[in-house]
Amino acid sequence: MVKKVLKFGGTSVGSIDRIQHVAKIIKKEHDTGSQVIVVVSAMAGKTNELVKFSKNISENFDKRELDVLLSSGEQVTCALLSGCLLELKVNAKSWLNWQIPILTDGEHTNARIVNMNVSKINSFLEKGVAIIPGFQGVSKNGDVTTIGRGGSDATAVAVAKLFKADACEIYTDVDGVFSSDPNKVPVAKKIDKISYDEMLELSSLGAKVMQSSAVQTAMMYDIPLEVRSTFTDRKGTRIFDRENIDYSKSVTGVAYSKDDAKITLIGVQDKPGVAADIFEPLNKAQINVDMVIQNISSDERTTDITFTIKREDLIKTKDILSNNKKINYKTINHNDKVAKVSIVGAGMVATPGVTYKMFRGLADEKINILAISSSEIKLSVIIEEEKTLIAVKKLHTIFDLD
Amino acid sequence: MVKKVLKFGGTSVGSIDRIQHVAKIIKKEHDTGSQVIVVVSAMAGKTNELVKFSKNISENFDKRELDVLLSSGEQVTCALLSGCLLELKVNAKSWLNWQIPILTDGEHTNARIVNMNVSKINSFLEKGVAIIPGFQGVSKNGDVTTIGRGGSDATAVAVAKLFKADACEIYTDVDGVFSSDPNKVPVAKKIDKISYDEMLELSSLGAKVMQSSAVQTAMMYDIPLEVRSTFTDRKGTRIFDRENIDYSKSVTGVAYSKDDAKITLIGVQDKPGVAADIFEPLNKAQINVDMVIQNISSDERTTDITFTIKREDLIKTKDILSNNKKINYKTINHNDKVAKVSIVGAGMVATPGVTYKMFRGLADEKINILAISSSEIKLSVIIEEEKTLIAVKKLHTIFDLD
Repeated sequence: MVKKVLKFGGTSVGSIDRIQHVAKIIKKEHDTGSQVIVVVSAMAGKTNELVKFSKNISENFDKRELDVLLSSGEQVTCALLSGCLLELKVNAKSWLNWQIPILTDGEHTNARIVNMNVSKINSFLEKGVAIIPGFQGVSKNGDVTTIGRGGSDATAVAVAKLFKADACEIYTDVDGVFSSDPNKVPVAKKIDKISYDEMLELSSLGAKVMQSSAVQTAMMYDIPLEVRSTFTDRKGTRIFDRENIDYSKSVTGVAYSKDDAKITLIGVQDKPGVAADIFEPLNKAQINVDMVIQNISSDERTTDITFTIKREDLIKTKDILSNNKKINYKTINHNDKVAKVSIVGAGMVATPGVTYKMFRGLADEKINILAISSSEIKLSVIIEEEKTLIAVKKLHTIFDLD
Repeated sequence: MVKKVLKFGGTSVGSIDRIQHVAKIIKKEHDTGSQVIVVVSAMAGKTNELVKFSKNISENFDKRELDVLLSSGEQVTCALLSGCLLELKVNAKSWLNWQIPILTDGEHTNARIVNMNVSKINSFLEKGVAIIPGFQGVSKNGDVTTIGRGGSDATAVAVAKLFKADACEIYTDVDGVFSSDPNKVPVAKKIDKISYDEMLELSSLGAKVMQSSAVQTAMMYDIPLEVRSTFTDRKGTRIFDRENIDYSKSVTGVAYSKDDAKITLIGVQDKPGVAADIFEPLNKAQINVDMVIQNISSDERTTDITFTIKREDLIKTKDILSNNKKINYKTINHNDKVAKVSIVGAGMVATPGVTYKMFRGLADEKINILAISSSEIKLSVIIEEEKTLIAVKKLHTIFDLD
């Protein structure tokens, strides 16, 4: 008996019509004889509406009560979807966070699922489809806890893991994972198969198809995922272990993000320990430093140090640097009009010359590289923000993704 | 230590502004040193919106899932109100149906509260205000169950009973219970004190200030109620035992309703058992027959029987009568353009001539009485619907209520 977890995001259940459509997808799956557990998000816009309510009351709305408030959204979808399935003569039942229960570690608005009781639902699955709310759980103390925005993906993967499902399908409003953003790069193509780690690099680099921590969990427990569209019948993107993928191309996708900022310290004393003195206080303040470059300065006794951070951390970072008595430098420059463009591909390791090819391509378009970082399956550069799309399209072309 | 239950209806919590206003009322009560338990309805319009969603899916939307759906409304209000109180530096905490739990007898969409765990909330009350959702509970099987429209009143009274509260205040959008509908009878006055049974007669006769079954429970356990406005500072109407009220007036209020219909069977055989043959099948079909009148017919061997039913039961009633082989009659007449007008007053028993005075008053206005029924504290007549307001105003005047 095949057991599947199907997860439907907010736009997929954004209206009664759409929920009825989702019910038909589930019925089709159920009719094949599969056991089906469904995880649903709140109807599109609902969570934002509730957040707005809370912000009208207080910018620091109590987190425990925020969780009670927001968790109502998925409860509504669960009931409506179960009702639709029953109307289609498919036996179905909603299971709320406390009815299962879904146990979390208890941190409000940012909890982690630690366990679920599977026995009751497992015996129900022999009779019908179980509908579970994403994004939420109950703490040991019996409080409602939510697991952060996009948390329904995490719920789906946790359900797949704990119920030992054979597959976990993430239904969304796009056809799957693309070689680049299809709204901006019209030649971008849907990727049929991708490895967890490539997917992780793509999600963390700005391809917002699936929540990163959910992909991470799937990778850790080797749960095969499929991202596919609720609105078409097309096959989606299958995500699984790298070993099971044959790579014909060195690069799988080109991603970009515009949430970085670059800081340069000019005229830093060139002596051992200075980098530690610079970055230690940033680390303490939980500021994530991404890329670091050290240039030789015109003055021999000093050097220039450039690094990138999240754009939202810019002011905090400059404050910390200004108040750091341990370091000496001439000036601080910053640039928050930068973008990070990355090529991702598990095939990169086996293909010599990828780095050169990328730099050559960008140079041909007269794009200046401000910083570089790389991992086994990823090569990222920081460039001027206004050149982002030119860079993405160029890389997409030269790595045969068009 | 005084312990109070405050209940706020849908219009009282219909917007963020209003919820913030309600929080101030609660803070004021809490600042006097009272222990406060608050019962809230869903925001005005919310339950109707959710019902509409369900009806778009199916006219027979599954009742279990309907309860899951509708119960989300009060959950939202609980969280928002707790957040407002915390913002006002009043310690507060929402308690959901399953967290308390509120135990019901388990009938979906029409459950009855059978018990609540009071210990956890009682110890919390020493520290802060407990916010509880009205209208819902959990069955023995762990299913969400709602207790029918207007059920938040029933929750409030059940909470008052089980927590042994000293008072139960029902906050609503009117100043209290009026001697008649103030929107239609401008001279109607707010009643300061009223007995449970008078209130019951008024609610069941169409004065929709409080849900009848909640008043019934309050009467049974002698829980003093006060109905008052969320939007003014005025004293409301206190509802308690009849023995504690001095009656200066024979009649307390004049109520009316327009949901009745009248049926007349003309030329029914005048012999023993015929009434039983007529009404038994109606009773079996759960059609509630209100008033019955038997007239002598022009033909000596036959009689005319008139009775009233709920207007919504009219077609069903006519069908049952037509298919009833046990009875013989010439024709059926019906009239669904009738209204029931009633005078209610615990002082009526002690005042002779009330009946005569009512009939005289209606006759003065040339209003024909189509049927009559009475109880110890109530006298109702069926009249032509178009004369309703003339009758109500006349009775309001002649019984000194203006």
